[in-house]
Amino acid sequence: AAPFALIAGPCQMESLEHSRMLCAKIAEATAPYGIPFVFKASYDKANRSSLGSERGLGIEKGLEILAAIREEFGCPVLTDVHDTGQVARAGEVADILQIPAFLSRQTDLLLAAGETGRVINVKKGQFLAPWDMANVAAKIASTGNENILLCERGASFGYNMLVSDFRALPIMAGTGYPVIFDATHSVQLPGGQGGTSGGQREFVEPLARAALAVGAAGLFVETHEDPDNAPSDGPNMVPVDRLPALLGRLAAIDALTKG
Amino acid sequence: AAPFALIAGPCQMESLEHSRMLCAKIAEATAPYGIPFVFKASYDKANRSSLGSERGLGIEKGLEILAAIREEFGCPVLTDVHDTGQVARAGEVADILQIPAFLSRQTDLLLAAGETGRVINVKKGQFLAPWDMANVAAKIASTGNENILLCERGASFGYNMLVSDFRALPIMAGTGYPVIFDATHSVQLPGGQGGTSGGQREFVEPLARAALAVGAAGLFVETHEDPDNAPSDGPNMVPVDRLPALLGRLAAIDALTKG
Amino acid sequence: AAPFALIAGPCQMESLEHSRMLCAKIAEATAPYGIPFVFKASYDKANRSSLGSERGLGIEKGLEILAAIREEFGCPVLTDVHDTGQVARAGEVADILQIPAFLSRQTDLLLAAGETGRVINVKKGQFLAPWDMANVAAKIASTGNENILLCERGASFGYNMLVSDFRALPIMAGTGYPVIFDATHSVQLPGGQGGTSGGQREFVEPLARAALAVGAAGLFVETHEDPDNAPSDGPNMVPVDRLPALLGRLAAIDALTKG
Amino acid sequence: AAPFALIAGPCQMESLEHSRMLCAKIAEATAPYGIPFVFKASYDKANRSSLGSERGLGIEKGLEILAAIREEFGCPVLTDVHDTGQVARAGEVADILQIPAFLSRQTDLLLAAGETGRVINVKKGQFLAPWDMANVAAKIASTGNENILLCERGASFGYNMLVSDFRALPIMAGTGYPVIFDATHSVQLPGGQGGTSGGQREFVEPLARAALAVGAAGLFVETHEDPDNAPSDGPNMVPVDRLPALLGRLAAIDALTKG
Repeated sequence: AAPFALIAGPCQMESLEHSRMLCAKIAEATAPYGIPFVFKASYDKANRSSLGSERGLGIEKGLEILAAIREEFGCPVLTDVHDTGQVARAGEVADILQIPAFLSRQTDLLLAAGETGRVINVKKGQFLAPWDMANVAAKIASTGNENILLCERGASFGYNMLVSDFRALPIMAGTGYPVIFDATHSVQLPGGQGGTSGGQREFVEPLARAALAVGAAGLFVETHEDPDNAPSDGPNMVPVDRLPALLGRLAAIDALTKG
Repeated sequence: AAPFALIAGPCQMESLEHSRMLCAKIAEATAPYGIPFVFKASYDKANRSSLGSERGLGIEKGLEILAAIREEFGCPVLTDVHDTGQVARAGEVADILQIPAFLSRQTDLLLAAGETGRVINVKKGQFLAPWDMANVAAKIASTGNENILLCERGASFGYNMLVSDFRALPIMAGTGYPVIFDATHSVQLPGGQGGTSGGQREFVEPLARAALAVGAAGLFVETHEDPDNAPSDGPNMVPVDRLPALLGRLAAIDALTKG
Repeated sequence: AAPFALIAGPCQMESLEHSRMLCAKIAEATAPYGIPFVFKASYDKANRSSLGSERGLGIEKGLEILAAIREEFGCPVLTDVHDTGQVARAGEVADILQIPAFLSRQTDLLLAAGETGRVINVKKGQFLAPWDMANVAAKIASTGNENILLCERGASFGYNMLVSDFRALPIMAGTGYPVIFDATHSVQLPGGQGGTSGGQREFVEPLARAALAVGAAGLFVETHEDPDNAPSDGPNMVPVDRLPALLGRLAAIDALTKG
Repeated sequence: AAPFALIAGPCQMESLEHSRMLCAKIAEATAPYGIPFVFKASYDKANRSSLGSERGLGIEKGLEILAAIREEFGCPVLTDVHDTGQVARAGEVADILQIPAFLSRQTDLLLAAGETGRVINVKKGQFLAPWDMANVAAKIASTGNENILLCERGASFGYNMLVSDFRALPIMAGTGYPVIFDATHSVQLPGGQGGTSGGQREFVEPLARAALAVGAAGLFVETHEDPDNAPSDGPNMVPVDRLPALLGRLAAIDALTKG
């Protein structure tokens, strides 16, 4: 059986050089296990906790870098879209368009994404039940585009914390669409009294292991060479130097589950 | 002390005649208690549970009706905005622009709304803690617009259910901005296995009473002459014929609390 | 209509002198409003977060003090029971026996309590839904004892926090039994990384106001002359000197609601 | 590395013959993988949802059966205790005494259990955070008994549902005590409007897989030859005939994780 797919990259795109460096390391880390990977980067962080946080490079610069990465590495590229008006443009470059969790119920955005014909990775809203995602997928599928990925990234659990319910993976898989587990945002500690979100990097591996043991089709993992100084989501990103060993352990569980 | 303000109207705008009929009944129900009211209606339901649900009249027709209502009744009017591109246009007509809960972290939408100079009513995301709203308000206030209302409408509590945490009202009031309690959406049973959201109309009054007893500055209540046949949110709307008696009971609590 | 009943006293019984002092202040604070009160004190804290915390005076000393309080002040007295073996003995003295929330599903304890013929105040487990309390009450009622009070004290909401769902009050009132709102433990921050529970005293009044506005038959409020130095639940107890003003404000809401 | 330990048996003890039949099947199912097993059965169901549900055989009959099982099969036996007065007696027979989740904060019960010197398996309360279990373990350890197992069985998540947070396993393992995952009660749908708890048997395997992938030291699985007609917890028990295949798949994950 085919191994799990990995969607990986920095939370926020920093520069072409930085993307090339990370993509090279991701390619190197996945190669020994035959793990197909998608390079992921955001050109705009449209829903930061507070206004003072950095937003990103913007759509044109971002897409230019993604196109360059795809050409150089031959890998598919993914980016997230936040505004209906940007979807068609992003779809000219990105192989996978991602719908952020907060926007997973915005009909126009889902339809516009579907109409690009690209693969659409929809994150499950923190406020949704796993079975609610069937209606979300149906909105996209109504455009004739059935290239849909459903992505678990945690459910609201009290304030400023998420919980990963692993029943959600088989439930969402029941739609027939592949299910991705976002091991980065699932360990986020959203908001809080300060102006940024925290995170629990130490739980990325346990939750990723659990996801593959229950049969996730893919993992989403943000990575950075120096997470503590990354412009966003540092507390929950995996240091890129730890990726090779981590992927080795994950590939073994995946092979057993899918085997 | 001034009584609480009431934001009321149908969930979804149906026609000028329908809006006039409801607004007349709201005006009549609030008059005996001197309750200032805002007429509320949505021209687009952009985040329905499923695609088959009705969307609404569209922005131009919707704003035309709101303008007519304001002219006829002399009341302020409120509508919600879902797309940055529509905000300036909606702000030409609406006295209050409302940011939906799912979109309460979308920076561009908050900034665009703030820049209209209109009053902005931000619903607290179901995935946010009350203290997270200080950062949300700060995004709007960064435009120089301090006309901000913070609106409680329930927090995620397990799947397909919300809970109203009445600690949230004094916590959000600590920002200095008036706090509105949305007694309609707080009793929503979002999503579920079917294609629409359910609701618990029987709890509108108890929760509205609680909100006024803890000092809410205003209430948000959707109403309809025949909720069970309304195009959206029927299960949690108050029949408009029950509004006069309900407001009488609520005004008494409010007078006691604010007195 | 009769005003709400107040169950009040220290979390943990300290001495006869201390109980007399507090009971005198409670009597004085309730008298102007005709609020009937029950003196509450625990002789044993059987489920403290950690072992190092104080446990209390023990059953015999505790009952002796409760009997003295009842004789001196003419008020009913309440204590909680944790062990089936102690119920009959406690029931010889206490007018009301209280079942702790953690023990609200323990059949033998409920039956033993019911068999005393005393009034039984059952706290709703943090892990129970309001409608689950019908089964709890039925266990007690099976003994022929219908003198049952159902007490809301918060539901688990993520980790180390409770939320007060005010829908629970009318739901539980649907059983026909009077509903008490425990304004002290509802604002507890249970457990946490340290060895004791925290609390949010500042929310006692807002939540008590909300409870009376939705029609609670009674309130449960722990009080102490110096909460910050009390042997337990200090962070959520009301300083006894603030009780008179607090009860004045609460009595007004209650009169309006029950009026 | 040693494989995981399995605690298995019926929810409720029915008879010696029934226990022998189940224990034989458990022994047979575990043997091929060298999985050490503990036979589990309850002689009393002390906290059933409603009074009409069956309670069990009682302590003396129950212990007699457990002793016979241990003698015949040479396996350790486990039973749960609900009352301080029964602990010493149960400890004369059972190798492992189990503290039910609802009772995980009852100091006297924890101390009495610790004092038997037996292994104590404490279920984490549905209302506790994983880090709260350090205080629970410390109560037992204060008796000088460090033979402690900490057992995850789900956390309250809204009403009538639990969620399994797999961060809890490494957090509790940080205490140094082995962590057991209860795959049966974690998929319970506690309470509900009716008089019994429901369950989601289909998630036993996914959650057990996840638990072993994150390193659980043991699993707790209730089983029955005809779960749909079992006296309790039928909806979440595994049919005993499916145990061999299930254990084969679980042993493979466990070997990989511990390997």
